[in-house]
Parts: sequence; C-alpha cells; structure tokens
Amino acid sequence: MTGWSGPAPEGWQDHARAALREDLGSGDVSAFALPQGGSARWMIEAQAEGVACGIGIAAWIMGDGAEVLAEDGQAVGPGTRLMQGECPADWAMSRERTALNYLMLLSGCASLTRRYVDAVAGTHARIVDTRKTVPGMRALQKYAVRCGGGHSHRMGLYDAVMIKDNHIALAGSITEAVARARAAISHMMRIEVETESLAQAMEAHQAGADVILLDNMSPAAMAECRKALPGAILEASGGISLQTVRAAAESGVDVISVGALTHSAPALSLHMEIE
Amino acid sequence: MTGWSGPAPEGWQDHARAALREDLGSGDVSAFALPQGGSARWMIEAQAEGVACGIGIAAWIMGDGAEVLAEDGQAVGPGTRLMQGECPADWAMSRERTALNYLMLLSGCASLTRRYVDAVAGTHARIVDTRKTVPGMRALQKYAVRCGGGHSHRMGLYDAVMIKDNHIALAGSITEAVARARAAISHMMRIEVETESLAQAMEAHQAGADVILLDNMSPAAMAECRKALPGAILEASGGISLQTVRAAAESGVDVISVGALTHSAPALSLHMEIE
Amino acid sequence: MTGWSGPAPEGWQDHARAALREDLGSGDVSAFALPQGGSARWMIEAQAEGVACGIGIAAWIMGDGAEVLAEDGQAVGPGTRLMQGECPADWAMSRERTALNYLMLLSGCASLTRRYVDAVAGTHARIVDTRKTVPGMRALQKYAVRCGGGHSHRMGLYDAVMIKDNHIALAGSITEAVARARAAISHMMRIEVETESLAQAMEAHQAGADVILLDNMSPAAMAECRKALPGAILEASGGISLQTVRAAAESGVDVISVGALTHSAPALSLHMEIE
Amino acid sequence: MTGWSGPAPEGWQDHARAALREDLGSGDVSAFALPQGGSARWMIEAQAEGVACGIGIAAWIMGDGAEVLAEDGQAVGPGTRLMQGECPADWAMSRERTALNYLMLLSGCASLTRRYVDAVAGTHARIVDTRKTVPGMRALQKYAVRCGGGHSHRMGLYDAVMIKDNHIALAGSITEAVARARAAISHMMRIEVETESLAQAMEAHQAGADVILLDNMSPAAMAECRKALPGAILEASGGISLQTVRAAAESGVDVISVGALTHSAPALSLHMEIE
Amino acid sequence: MTGWSGPAPEGWQDHARAALREDLGSGDVSAFALPQGGSARWMIEAQAEGVACGIGIAAWIMGDGAEVLAEDGQAVGPGTRLMQGECPADWAMSRERTALNYLMLLSGCASLTRRYVDAVAGTHARIVDTRKTVPGMRALQKYAVRCGGGHSHRMGLYDAVMIKDNHIALAGSITEAVARARAAISHMMRIEVETESLAQAMEAHQAGADVILLDNMSPAAMAECRKALPGAILEASGGISLQTVRAAAESGVDVISVGALTHSAPALSLHMEIE
Amino acid sequence: MTGWSGPAPEGWQDHARAALREDLGSGDVSAFALPQGGSARWMIEAQAEGVACGIGIAAWIMGDGAEVLAEDGQAVGPGTRLMQGECPADWAMSRERTALNYLMLLSGCASLTRRYVDAVAGTHARIVDTRKTVPGMRALQKYAVRCGGGHSHRMGLYDAVMIKDNHIALAGSITEAVARARAAISHMMRIEVETESLAQAMEAHQAGADVILLDNMSPAAMAECRKALPGAILEASGGISLQTVRAAAESGVDVISVGALTHSAPALSLHMEIE
Repeated sequence: MTGWSGPAPEGWQDHARAALREDLGSGDVSAFALPQGGSARWMIEAQAEGVACGIGIAAWIMGDGAEVLAEDGQAVGPGTRLMQGECPADWAMSRERTALNYLMLLSGCASLTRRYVDAVAGTHARIVDTRKTVPGMRALQKYAVRCGGGHSHRMGLYDAVMIKDNHIALAGSITEAVARARAAISHMMRIEVETESLAQAMEAHQAGADVILLDNMSPAAMAECRKALPGAILEASGGISLQTVRAAAESGVDVISVGALTHSAPALSLHMEIE
Repeated sequence: MTGWSGPAPEGWQDHARAALREDLGSGDVSAFALPQGGSARWMIEAQAEGVACGIGIAAWIMGDGAEVLAEDGQAVGPGTRLMQGECPADWAMSRERTALNYLMLLSGCASLTRRYVDAVAGTHARIVDTRKTVPGMRALQKYAVRCGGGHSHRMGLYDAVMIKDNHIALAGSITEAVARARAAISHMMRIEVETESLAQAMEAHQAGADVILLDNMSPAAMAECRKALPGAILEASGGISLQTVRAAAESGVDVISVGALTHSAPALSLHMEIE
Repeated sequence: MTGWSGPAPEGWQDHARAALREDLGSGDVSAFALPQGGSARWMIEAQAEGVACGIGIAAWIMGDGAEVLAEDGQAVGPGTRLMQGECPADWAMSRERTALNYLMLLSGCASLTRRYVDAVAGTHARIVDTRKTVPGMRALQKYAVRCGGGHSHRMGLYDAVMIKDNHIALAGSITEAVARARAAISHMMRIEVETESLAQAMEAHQAGADVILLDNMSPAAMAECRKALPGAILEASGGISLQTVRAAAESGVDVISVGALTHSAPALSLHMEIE
Repeated sequence: MTGWSGPAPEGWQDHARAALREDLGSGDVSAFALPQGGSARWMIEAQAEGVACGIGIAAWIMGDGAEVLAEDGQAVGPGTRLMQGECPADWAMSRERTALNYLMLLSGCASLTRRYVDAVAGTHARIVDTRKTVPGMRALQKYAVRCGGGHSHRMGLYDAVMIKDNHIALAGSITEAVARARAAISHMMRIEVETESLAQAMEAHQAGADVILLDNMSPAAMAECRKALPGAILEASGGISLQTVRAAAESGVDVISVGALTHSAPALSLHMEIE
Repeated sequence: MTGWSGPAPEGWQDHARAALREDLGSGDVSAFALPQGGSARWMIEAQAEGVACGIGIAAWIMGDGAEVLAEDGQAVGPGTRLMQGECPADWAMSRERTALNYLMLLSGCASLTRRYVDAVAGTHARIVDTRKTVPGMRALQKYAVRCGGGHSHRMGLYDAVMIKDNHIALAGSITEAVARARAAISHMMRIEVETESLAQAMEAHQAGADVILLDNMSPAAMAECRKALPGAILEASGGISLQTVRAAAESGVDVISVGALTHSAPALSLHMEIE
Repeated sequence: MTGWSGPAPEGWQDHARAALREDLGSGDVSAFALPQGGSARWMIEAQAEGVACGIGIAAWIMGDGAEVLAEDGQAVGPGTRLMQGECPADWAMSRERTALNYLMLLSGCASLTRRYVDAVAGTHARIVDTRKTVPGMRALQKYAVRCGGGHSHRMGLYDAVMIKDNHIALAGSITEAVARARAAISHMMRIEVETESLAQAMEAHQAGADVILLDNMSPAAMAECRKALPGAILEASGGISLQTVRAAAESGVDVISVGALTHSAPALSLHMEIE
C-alpha cells in the first residue's frame, strides 16, 4: 500500500520538503535533551470519526521505516491506526508534527466532503470543490475532496472558462461572451456561465455553454431550470451548507459546489504515539 | 496605510507569487470572453463580523492601483470596505480569487483568535498558537494570530526547547533532560517542559525550566500548580475550546495554547465587487 | 503597446530571468573590451517573412528603455522593426542574445502555424498544437501557436482526458474506458478518444466522448467518419504535413493537430542593430 | 550503459523534474480510465535515420525499470530500439511524452549536426554551435551538438571574449579592444575577434586574438585570410547552410559555427510502444 | 558513523547541490583528458592541527562509496584521515573541490572556536557566535561553532530580541523598550539589552531583561557589573580577541560573543589524495 | 555611482534576497521594542585600512534611499564613508547586518588581494584566485579579488581544463592527456597542465598546453622553467604566502594563484551608524 488513492499532484515531495524546512529550520533543539542512540516505535492513529487523507505524503515524511496501514479515502474512527514504524527517536520526534499537519488538514477536507456527499445520497448530484483553497495547497486539497467522495471543479483560471456577471456586462451579453470564448479556447475545454435567472440559464444553454451555474437560486428556482433544461449540466452554487445541500440536490441539479470544503473544514483529530 | 501591522515574515511576496502561479497557470482563459481594453473599479468588503488580516498581501496582489482602507487587526463587519482600486478588467478578475483566499484564511485565524482572547478578558492569561499550522503558511498564520490579539508560541523546532514525555523517558528524568538541553542550547533560548502532574511541574521548575506546560489538566489541578509555583510561567494546553478556555484562564495560568486557531478556523466571509 | 496578445502564462518573467542567468552567468567578459560609459541605440528587426511572437518578453529583457513597435501575431517581413531603445552599450550587448533567442523560437512557431492556417483557409478546420513541445517552454510555445492563428490542444496530462489504445486495451473497451473516466473527472473537463476506424469512432461517440481523434486515417476515411458523425467534434492527427493538411481539412474534420508546430519549427530570422 | 556520452551538465535532473511538473501538473487525469494495477512493457524506438541523444535523461524519466539499449551519439534508423522497460501502466503513460520530448529535441540537434559534420568530412574544419539556443536548454543542446560530432563554442557571455563591431567602435580599434580585454580577463580565457576583411583579421591576429571570426566572408576571402594567417585559428560564421558548408571548410578555416544546429533542427521522429 | 554531531540544519543537501552546480556547471571539461572507465581510491586527510567539521556534508557530496572515519568536532592533526572511498575517477575529481571547500571552511570555524574555548578553560564563560556570518552559510557556521565547543547566540532577527542603543533612544528608555517587547513577543523568547555602563546594566536587569550585553567594557567594568548583578546572565561583547578573551572570562561574565569565529576564521588545511 | 566596478554576476539580487530571508525569517522581533513611525539616518563607514567591495549589493539591500559614496575597489581607511541614507528606523536596523556581512566578507577578500598585489609590485606577475571559495559565493568572491587588483582563474570545472597528476596517470602521459582534451573541448577554451618538474613543464609545452602550472616549486626551479620556456604562460601555485609571493614573482612566472584570497581572508572591519 502506498497510501495514495489515484493520481497524486506532481511535485508533492517538494511541498513536503518545504514544510519540513519550515518546521525544522536550523535543527530540532529539543533533541539536545536526548541521550544519543535511542530508538522509537511510533504509530499514527485517528482520534475521531472521519475520512483519512494524506497518508502517502505523511508516510514519506516519516521515512523509509514507515509502514502504511490504511488508504486515503478510508473511513476511520477513534483508534484506527494509519501507519506505524520504528526509527531513531530524534527522527520520529522531529518529523511528527509535519506529518500530522498534512494528515489533519487533508483528512479534515476529506471528512467534511464525505458529510456533504452522504447528505445527498440517493440523488444524482455530485459535490464539487471550488478555487477557495489555501494558497499553495490547491492540488492537495482537491485530491482530498476526491478522497472524500467529492469531485473536482476546474483547477484554476487556466483549465476551463467561467463566465461571470462582469464578463457578461463587458461583452454585452451571455451569447456574445460565450461566442468570444469558444472561438479562442481549446476544443478540449469547457465553458460554464454563471446565471441568476431562468432566462439567463436558457440564454447560456442556447449560446452553447457546457455547464450552467445557478447562482444563489432557491431550490424551487433550480427545479424550474432543471425542468426547462433537461439535458444541460446544472451546477448549484452559493452559500450551500450541510443544512441546505439536500434540498439543492433534490431540485435535480447535477453538481453542487461548496467552498467550505477547502476554506473552512476543521482538522481531523489525529495523533502520534511514540514508545 | 500598508495594511500590515508590525513585522511581516520575510519573503511573503514569493509566497504570493507562487499562489498566483497556482491559480493562473498558463493564463486566465475566461479573459477570452472579454473585449479588449475594459477597465474596472473593484472593492473588497467583509460579509461577516470578525478581524481583518492579510490586507497587505492582498493589496500587493491586486497591484499598484490598490488603495488600502483598513489595517490588519481591525474589527470588521458586513460591509466594511478593506480596500479598493481601479485597473484593467481582466487584471482584476484574474487576481481576485488569490487575494481573497489570503484574506479569508488569515482573517479567519485572526477572528477565531479574537474570540478566545475576548473569552479570557479580565484574566491575565494570553492566548497563543501552536505548530499545528497549514504546511507552508506558518509564519503568516502566526502573524494572523497576533493580529487577533493572541501571541506566538515557538515558530518551529529550532527556536525553543519543548521537553515532552518521550524526551523525559529517554533522558531518564525531567531534571536530566533539562540539564542536557540547557548545557547545549543558546543562552538566548527558553526551555519548556510538558508535565502531567503537580509533582512533575515542581520538578521542572526545580530543574530550571523557563516555562511549564500543564498538559490536559483540570482547572483545579492547574490552580494547584499555580499556587505551588507562584513565580513560574505556566501554560495550559490540550483540548482547550471556547467553552473551556475561561475556566482555564481563571485557574491562574499565564498562557493558553490553542491548536484550533491555526488548524480549524473557518474562513471569514469576504467578497470582491467589480463594476 | 505591451507586445503581448491576450493572456500570457503566469511566471514568464521567471523564465526570462533564468534565461539571462544561463547566458550571463558570472558576467559578460566581453564588456572588459569597452571603455566606461558608452551609450547605444538599438533596434530589433525581422529578416524574413513570418509572424512575430515574443515581443513582450523580449522587450522586458531589453529593459525599461525598450519601445515596442509591433504586437505578437503581427505579420512581418525583412526590415519590419519590432522594437527599439537606447541604453548603456554593455547592457544592450549583454541582453541582445537572450531577447533574440525568445523572439526567434516563438516567432518560428507562430510563423509555421500561420502557414498551416493559411493552407486550410476556407475550410472550417482549426489547426492545433500538441504536447510535443520543448521541455520548459510549453505555455510559451502554445501561446505562439495562438499568435500564429492556431488554437491550443490540452496543456498537459492534467486538464483533459485522452483515451489511447493502451487505455482501451486495459479497460476492456472504449465504452468502459470513457465511463470510468467520466465518473471520476471534473464536470468541467472533456474526454477525447483516439480511434483508428469508423467503428471505433462510432463507439466513442456512443460512449459520450466529447472529441474523437481520427488517428492516421486517410482523408477518405475521415470523410466517412464525418458523414457518420455529423455532430461530433472530429480531430485529425498523425503525420500531417503542409502537403497533406488541406486534404485533411477538406474531409470535414473540425480540428487538425500538428506536432511540428512546436517540435520542428525553424527559427524566424531576426537581428539586433546597435549603433 | 547510462546512455550519456561524456560529462553531463550538472543539474539535469532538476531540468527533467520541471519538465515532468509541466506535463503532469495536478496529475494525469487519463489514468482514471484505467483499472487499478495494470502493468506495461514499453520500448522506445527511432522512426527515422539520425543520431540518438537524450537517452540518459529519458531513461531517468522512465524510472528504475528502464534498460538502456543505446548510447548518446549512436547512429540510429527506423526500428532501432533505444531503451525498454516494464512498470505500472499508468506510470509509463504519464512519463512517455516528457521522455520523448527530450529525445526528439536532442536527437534532432545531434542529427542535424552529424549532417554538417559529414558534409565537411575530409577537411580539418570542425562544426561548432552558437549561443542561439532554446532558453533553458543551452547546456543540453550543446551536449547534443557534441554527440552529433560537433564541438562547443563558448557556453555564454561569461567564459570567453567575443569582440564585435560595436566593441571595436566603442574601444576605438581592434587593437585597443583586445588589449583592454586581455588586461582584465583570466589567463585561462580566450579572445575572439569578429572581422569583416583581411585587414581586420590581420589586425586582430597582431593584437593577440586567440581566434579570428570571419564574418559572412566568401570562401575566396576566407582562403585569402587562411593564406595570410597560417597559424591563426580561423572561424567561419554567418548564414552557413548544408549547401555552403563544404566550400567554407575547403577554404581552410578551422572552425565553422552554425546557428541552425540549435535554433532550427527538426525533431527526430521517435515513439514509444506500450504493450 | 554519519560524520554529523547533533541536529543538522534542515536543507543542507540543497545547499550542497547548489555548490556542486556552482562548480560543475555545464560539466567537468577536464574529464575529457581521461580514458573511459578508470576507477579511483580516494581519501581526505587533515594537513594541520584543528577540529574537523563538515564531514557529513562532504561525505554526502563524495557519494555512496564514501566511508566516514571521523566525527564532526573531533580534534585532528596532519595525517588524520577523515573519510575515504572508491569510485569512478572522473566522479572523484569532479566532487573533490566542493567537498573540500565545505570541510575547510567549517573546520576553520570549529578550529578557531576551539582556541577561544581553550583560552577560557577553567572559567565558567561560554564562547558564542554572532550574526556576522557568511551570507547563506549561517546555520552551517553556527553548527561548526558548536562542534568547536562553542555555543550559539540567536540565529537571526526572528528568534530573540536584542535591544540596542537605537531602540533605547527611540523607545525613550531601556525600561520602556523592554516592556514594549515583552508585551508583544512569545513567552518562549528571551530579551537581551545592550548596555554601556553599570547603570544601564542595572536598569536592564530591573526591567526584566533575560540577558545583559556589556558592550566594549573593560574587564574591571565587567567585574563590577558581575558583582552588582550576581544572578543575571551577562554577555561580554565587542572586539574580543584571543589575547583579551581570558581577562573577559575572568571578570565573571557568563557568555562571550566573538564575531571572528564566523567572519575571519582561516580555513583548515585539508586535501584529497587520489590513487 | 552604482558601487559596482565592472560586470557583476547575474543573479546577485537573488543571492541578497536569500541572505535577507536567512537573517529576517519570520520577522525582526526587536522591532516590537520600537514605537511606530520613527525615522533614521544611517551611514556605513570603514574602521580599518583596506579595499572596499560589495558596495553595490549592500546599497541594494539598504533600499531605495541609499546613497553610494564610494566604488568597489577603492582604498579606504578608518572613517571612510561608503554609503548613507535615511529610512524608517526599523527598516535600517533589520537590513544593517546583512548589508555589513556582504561588505565585510567581500572587502576582506579585496583587501587581502591588494596586499598580495602590492607585494609583487614591479614584477609582471599577476595574482589570481582559485576554486577554494565559500560554497555559494564563488562569483562574488572572484569579483572581489578583481576589485583588489587581482585576476580570475577559471570559474569552475566547466570553463577551462586543468590536467592534474591523476589525469596524467590515467591517460598515460601529459602528451596524451592534452591531446585527448584538445580534441574534445571548445576552440575557445584553454588547457593548463600541472607539473612538478622542468621535464614535465617542457612536455606540457610541447603538447600544446596554453598554461603551465608549476606546483610547489622553489623560486629557483621556477626560474629554470622560465628560462627554458620563455614564451609559455607559467603559473606558480602551492602554499604561496605574503612572505613567499615576491620571490615567486621574481622567478619570472606570469601568474601566481593564492587560495587564501578566498578561503582565509579576514573580514574588513566596517560598521553602520544610525541616528
């Protein structure tokens, strides 16, 4: 087992190296309290219910001696052991915090995602992330959302078009904005249009948008769009919470995007035991 | 006004540049929807109560035309305008998300810190952060905690000694662990010892620890330590929440460390308006 | 004028800085031949017919004194002046080669692209690039293709799905491979399937592929696919040359991808004159 | 066999890592089409006549399982197998393009060089490269020229002196320019002077130039220089093509520099087969 | 044996990689003088009396075949062998200089430190370093000082407070400056105050400074401070040399800081023998 | 005035940025002792006799307000003012040390070089540096040697050939080693051969070496080589000190290389005054 589930973002080792430098700096001065040569057995376990994520990166941080006992995306609870190993005591203590910080953050994202996914169970709506991510952590956070059962929205400004109200205002109309973009972009790229009414949604569809974002609409309004545009991909967005997500899903939309997955997920409690 | 409040971590521009590369990649393809040459007035405002943080970095991201209207550490509420400017429309739209991501994360940390600080008002306890930070964001998050009225704990493993149970077990005793560390470290560095009982706390004090961490003690146990060690710096730690923090403070400890400030603070809602 | 035409890849200044370091290293030793304080007027002009590209980056390299006289994407010929300026003589001589290297490479890409675009004039086929790019130059080369009148294919492995023969073999069928990918990827992402026969093309269409690649098919075979799949996006690929591109376009395909645009475009001749 | 022929530029692994990041980004989404656990045998073979180059770097990209079957600098033809291996299927498919991009570019340089070298066979002229290289690829391209039987000119502005017309104009004379440079530079460094006439060439030689560049001279003019300066190192430069290179060599010059080797070499066709 | 003695600064491998790139650049051209395939036995030995430092980093540079024969901090003399190995001849010759440059610099720092430490033997003063270090080498040089028997002062501006005359002047008084700093900084951080008289030293102590720097005081003046402030940590600083250090130590100060350890230590002579 | 004297190594700003990060880290905590808004006038002056170097880089570190009052290479003495400025007090105090560290190191190199240059005044020998430099500082230190009146040897392993005893042993003979290298290297590159006897020196000359290194020879032996090889470039090397350098120069050699210039130069005393 590698801990990873599916394609990992290229360059994650560099990310982890920078995190180690951030914590270790000129060296772990607490190691001066130790006699030379001590060895330690360590294990990392969950302390709460959730979905594990970051096991591959944490195991790499803990080093060659790390044995992976779970996979990213696996449901865990208090006492679930994620990995374990044996190594020099000062090594374990100097790597513990960085490994845990990745695990807590990414498992937190995955766990919150799972709650949204569970909340829409039985509907055909998928839960997706947004670009509201922690600077420097986007690819890892979007991986965590996927581990939690969610899906990805676009990665950044570069891989898909999102036409917002300002684009529409400057271009003159939805139709004009979509036409301009379509003429210029790759044939491998999709266009989404942010709409605030059925009329706009219908214009976007007419204009050839691949995806139509229903911005801050009520479930009733979304259901109306669904009915009017049976074949379109509809995305609900704007202030969706665990309380409101099911109603959104039941309106018949295909996709629900939730910023909180990556900007407000509380960490999952995990700790390392060292003997 | 620069937006910053006190010393900023050296190299924050590089951090912001990497974040822009993460979002912009090979370029903002939605810009193809725009006619050439449009200009935009933009402003960023809070949408909820909290403490602003990240204004300096966000203004830098928005570019030369950004006018700063608030300072980091300032209390804000729905409608408080943080900054504004005028620039080419495509520039504003391509920079918006990165600027907001910093503001939301850092203001979230500052806002949660302020709630803890307010909860202990009138006691002499200070609220401090931990090393449970987002990989790559430690210095910025610790700055945010300070903007929220909190203080910093050590930055990493390199700038202060923390003697934990494993150090004690390997060294043989608290006394021995402290002595080893003190003999080796800089005279400009402090030593903290993690203790689980009054007896340990007293041994740590005897051994010359600068700070004594009371790990997961009840308020009553902490009050006992306070009484026994009137001149020592005592730090409460372990599972402190907004519900329990005041009781901890009233036990007479000097410092209360709270991991949630940096690993579980929900983002502060902010948005950009573009005309 | 900035020289750029549309969104530039984020981080192009870092690219140029690295190129300057590559050429200048520990310093331009030929400058020792110069007396101190000489000033120079310089200008860059084309020496052959083609399409200019790289003007923005070259002007940045030449420094603040550079005056841009043309735009990326503009047709040029012998004697067309692209930019000019005045600066210390040693500065001009130490920056000349790096500026020209970008201009020659990118204008070469743009110029070859224009020839393919011209060759299909009157058809509705668009000419697109591939991932067969110079390591480290992909985003800039794809920008150059666009300046030459072409369009972009996917940027890399991360922003669109391409199902090839090996995927099909391992997944069991086109239908299965498309279904697997569609279930996992972002709703903002497209799927292309590489096919070698009408039967495969039809299966791909049936399976919901967004784009169908016709690999190394004759114009007649492509025309047959066109007829059978009037609404699909069809891409011709495989050994297309300036000799064969028009026949491919006339078969009715929508997109023709040409690796040579980025792996075998000869440089456009340009030079700098310094007085 | 390592694939490399002679000293490789330090840091080539970093170059390859950046290229992988450029292609893979947040991960190969086409891998989602695959069932887990498939394995693949792969091999890379040439599809045209030429000289192989980049085998060492490509093998490193393909990973530990790569077996090198040829050396950089080796003549290859359609069907010559360069390397092969066995590894997880998704790994092979995600690394293929980056490995091939290096091989195609560098083999292209080596192959074109070989054609120039062959064209001057029997003369004593050596074919050398220039600073007209792809930004970021200079050391690798110059290595490729060497693999094709060519030699290197200076690496950059830092390792040898080239006195051009502008230096001469500003210094007052060739003699003065050479004297200035010689007094300042390392005793381990050579000086070349660009000349446009026999008179200039003779002045340069008199002034102590180590190498004399004959800029855009006819073969007859070069032969005259040769006769007048039998002991000097003479370099022909300026618009040399495969058609004109032999006449230049037969004029008796020692060195012929050809910009096209690194700015206009078409890629060598290569492909990977995966089973 | 790893060669290292205690915690090494995180990221030292990156430092060494950059140093190798600095020396090797586009490759070791002297290797062209060698026939292929030669192997070499090499060993590094000291040529003078001193303290070895840098063995861990030098061994890493020499590669897997390096056998470490001494530890950082060990006293060495002419002929003491530090490490040895066997590898391809061109590898050994291309790595030799970089390995030796680290060893010479760091052993030089350690050796000079040892001389100061020996000079104060029998007193209780410790010798510490300063921030007067070589740009880019601070953490490694401070490690070397420790290997020589010295101790570290603060690492940089970020990990401890030093209140100097300018701070005092701007804050209004020592008392005010200390109070301001104490209120803002971490409870894990110490404050030192630079003083020029007994009166200032007493004010600093009164104000709660953790450490008092006696700037350029005579031994007699320092002894007076010692007597007046028996419990304070006193640091002597300013122009301390091997001639004056013992008198300073005998005045009773606890710490003596010496800039020369890191800005003026001559290299220790070492060489590599290759057979 | 820019402070620089001649071509500076490309990328020196990056070097300085890294040095600032090394010192400032998460921010200058001593700034907390200051009231807001104080301004400072500062000036940097020499405190000892020597040659200034590093003025350009130090002025850049001090920021836009820095006024340069001297040039690199200028002789200075106690009280010579090198630069001055006015800026916020906390800025000046946080930049002071990094600026001074460059100035002290580089001026130290330049000053020691000048002493060697003065010691050989009247002979025609030039003093040159070696590759025995501080890791990461080579180009800057070699610049400093030049500012002190010395010259550069090769920059690294990549820009000139040095044939040592091991090369000779492996190649079979000096003649063979030189022939191998000459056939492979650039025509713009020189070859030096390390010799230990007149016989070897003569063989090297015969073989076409551009420069002959006389390793650890007595002045008498060097004079003999001079006599035997009147037209060759001879370099004295090996344990040259200020005591022995003149005798070496008077033996008639052209070049004397001195490792101490870059590995053992004591820093030049400089300080900053802030009002």
